[in-house]
Amino acid sequence: MALISPSRRLRRTPFSAGVEAAGVKAYTIYNHMLLPTIFESVEADYHHLKNHVQVWDVSVERQVELRGPDAARLMQMLTPRDLRSMLPGRCFYVPIVDETGGMLNDPVAVKLAEDRWWISIADSDLLLWVKGIANGYRLDVLVDEPDVSPLAVQGPKADDLMARVFGDAVRDIRFFRFGMFEFEGRDLAVARSGYSKQGGFEIYVSGSDIAMPLWETLFAAGEDLNVRAGCPNAIERIEGGLLSYGNDMTDDNTPHECGLGRFCDTQTAIGCIGRDALLRVAKEGPVQQIRAIAIEGDPVPLCDRAWPLFAQGRRVGQITSATWSPDYATNVAIGMVRMTHWDSGTALEVETPDGMRSATVQPGFWL
Amino acid sequence: MALISPSRRLRRTPFSAGVEAAGVKAYTIYNHMLLPTIFESVEADYHHLKNHVQVWDVSVERQVELRGPDAARLMQMLTPRDLRSMLPGRCFYVPIVDETGGMLNDPVAVKLAEDRWWISIADSDLLLWVKGIANGYRLDVLVDEPDVSPLAVQGPKADDLMARVFGDAVRDIRFFRFGMFEFEGRDLAVARSGYSKQGGFEIYVSGSDIAMPLWETLFAAGEDLNVRAGCPNAIERIEGGLLSYGNDMTDDNTPHECGLGRFCDTQTAIGCIGRDALLRVAKEGPVQQIRAIAIEGDPVPLCDRAWPLFAQGRRVGQITSATWSPDYATNVAIGMVRMTHWDSGTALEVETPDGMRSATVQPGFWL
Repeated sequence: MALISPSRRLRRTPFSAGVEAAGVKAYTIYNHMLLPTIFESVEADYHHLKNHVQVWDVSVERQVELRGPDAARLMQMLTPRDLRSMLPGRCFYVPIVDETGGMLNDPVAVKLAEDRWWISIADSDLLLWVKGIANGYRLDVLVDEPDVSPLAVQGPKADDLMARVFGDAVRDIRFFRFGMFEFEGRDLAVARSGYSKQGGFEIYVSGSDIAMPLWETLFAAGEDLNVRAGCPNAIERIEGGLLSYGNDMTDDNTPHECGLGRFCDTQTAIGCIGRDALLRVAKEGPVQQIRAIAIEGDPVPLCDRAWPLFAQGRRVGQITSATWSPDYATNVAIGMVRMTHWDSGTALEVETPDGMRSATVQPGFWL
Repeated sequence: MALISPSRRLRRTPFSAGVEAAGVKAYTIYNHMLLPTIFESVEADYHHLKNHVQVWDVSVERQVELRGPDAARLMQMLTPRDLRSMLPGRCFYVPIVDETGGMLNDPVAVKLAEDRWWISIADSDLLLWVKGIANGYRLDVLVDEPDVSPLAVQGPKADDLMARVFGDAVRDIRFFRFGMFEFEGRDLAVARSGYSKQGGFEIYVSGSDIAMPLWETLFAAGEDLNVRAGCPNAIERIEGGLLSYGNDMTDDNTPHECGLGRFCDTQTAIGCIGRDALLRVAKEGPVQQIRAIAIEGDPVPLCDRAWPLFAQGRRVGQITSATWSPDYATNVAIGMVRMTHWDSGTALEVETPDGMRSATVQPGFWL
């Protein structure tokens, strides 16, 4: 692995001092900001995440805030998911599409009030799309990036740790709901969500000044729970089928290709900019789709580019994320496969930097 | 420096194989893509750049292509620079602003034809803003990112190397003009431009398939010119006052604050979305502006965040890029300074991670 050259453009976060003190070894860049990727090792971090509790600096999940009388209308213009039933206090995973139905981002929308929303974004400057649309349609809405940095608490002991800091009421937060909880006199949105399948919370830390105090409070409270600094884990997220925008999908893909059809209500999402383009694919289905794929043999090398998938010498798709899974003792992977070859059990070949490997389409992800 | 975790999301370029073979040591991420930052060392690369010729993989300068009857109208909507006089074959450095006059990018616009433009972008997803505006205003224009990856040839021997590959006619290309030159049967735009003050060219390589053949042809042709793989050099660019979007300016800043007033014709740039917001600042001038600043003492540490600037204990600005300059034997820096303290010769103090340092506003950059 190469080194990363620091500069202001690769923004530090309000938690960077804590991350560094915890011995971060590697980063990725996400929304022009540092996202830790390794503390002890990817594999050690993975086992710890599945058994204990970790605190993750996910400030890179920047918020796009919509505020004003047209906020809800604008939010619906962005996504084919029907938002009419969404109440304040809810989080919705929303595919964001352009006028052709291509994915621009796959964020979580947080409804704070009828006229106030946060879009907690994946790795693209969604702010620019939203501002462009708001301007072009002359909507009465403020669109900006507030000083809000999410901190995730993930792992089987997340409830215990959070209860010690925010009180037992956090245990009652239901999945993809949030409540307001006080820390040092400030009200913070705390949601049951996060980019792992181990359970946990995301705290939307409003105001950089309380970031390190909260970080330190969590670590002090969790000492006997073996709390550690962690980060989204490459192995765990592939096992669990958590997609990564830019890795597993791009603006070339529709939500349906990404297996996100269940988050689309294309018929009734009136106002969605990509609705016309998606109506046909919503009805007929996509011609290629995301699949869980097992790759045989020894651990695969780092997957830093798309690996072509073949069947009888014909190209039928590509692998976009892959890694060795210690718990499942196989290489786990995410790929986009053409419908002719996407059925569970289909035998494929994948061209890795180490040579061709046998691969098999799985019935689902590993969980 | 920490390690960078590779993934498909941090896109490789069509020249990555060449960059790796040349022994790249560090990268930054720019437009979701790998940009080399160090080959031998920042200082060795700097001396070589000033004396010989380098080939730079600047694929990260992604193109936003505008095509169709409304292309020119859309281009003018994006910038306060008056584009009416711009002929095909010209490159214009254009501040891109939002409706408040805040900088969204500082790209080079390349006019291929009246109805076909490339915007060669700095580090923000400008594509999303342009697509949003095109959609909102219902313009008849195609907006996308084509398979075009710039390759820069920079340094005092750049003309000699380029003439060997493209013929002597490249010597006649004037600054910020481009001509079409053939390589392996394909017409490529070759511009006299680049992110250094050492002179040279940028080749807009259309089609990834000819990227490595061109890379290898340049290295074979330049062996006796001591050609090397290089990259934008942190020292040389600060000496020369080449601004970096995300480092030295953000969407908080107007073009006038960035010293880019000479690229604004706010009165006559009719149609520019930020025009109303900029009219006042264009007339009255900004209250803070970019300045060259010398920092006294030993070499400063890596500048990975804004360093506050003080005068008599009062905050008057910030340093956003800084490094030791071997050729000028001082620390060279770029900062944003309030008008009360921006005159040449003004004594300031800068808070670096190593402690307070004396600093002085310079009459201009070092060139």
